[in-house]
Amino acid sequence: MALPVAPPDCTAVVFISQFSGNDGPGYAEAAQAMELAAAKQPGYRGFVSARGADGVGIAVSYWADDAAALAWRKHSDHARTIARGRAVWYDAYAVSVATVTRSYDWQRGGA
Amino acid sequence: MALPVAPPDCTAVVFISQFSGNDGPGYAEAAQAMELAAAKQPGYRGFVSARGADGVGIAVSYWADDAAALAWRKHSDHARTIARGRAVWYDAYAVSVATVTRSYDWQRGGA
Repeated sequence: MALPVAPPDCTAVVFISQFSGNDGPGYAEAAQAMELAAAKQPGYRGFVSARGADGVGIAVSYWADDAAALAWRKHSDHARTIARGRAVWYDAYAVSVATVTRSYDWQRGGA
Repeated sequence: MALPVAPPDCTAVVFISQFSGNDGPGYAEAAQAMELAAAKQPGYRGFVSARGADGVGIAVSYWADDAAALAWRKHSDHARTIARGRAVWYDAYAVSVATVTRSYDWQRGGA
């Protein structure tokens, strides 16, 4: 897969979560639905996520600006899923919203 | 584990990588050594990482300011490990450095 590269001035939303272990299949389905829905929102610039065997997950989404990130947070499907996350899937989460100041990337055999 | 919460104005470094699959034990040992070394640097504010079964990993470190983040990037032990990452462990990576503008967190049973 291609790793998303965030241009300067875009908004990064870093979502760190501890999975509860409850309803894993429901969680996986909802996570995929949210990833697809986010990609259709105005100002979407990219997404990547990882979850390790210890249940700690990190999801990073990139947005054109803070308003676009906030609009996605308040989107009705997303708000419902966030509520379900608190009710069932997560034991804890922490969110940081940040403005990208610089970025760089590397790939094997790249220029 | 406690999830790190980033206060506004701190610098977040988001490191996204695709693991090559080469020398997993060496990688795990180096990753742990770097996590311990980073925590001793001036301006360190927290760290969290996750790597999924698909080999995509995300590591987020928080710093008091951009200078502290840059100093860690240039730290000799870290620079050696970065070079080894390009030589052996990674097929690709992308780094975003960003200034936190807002943050919030939640935990089950919390206030």
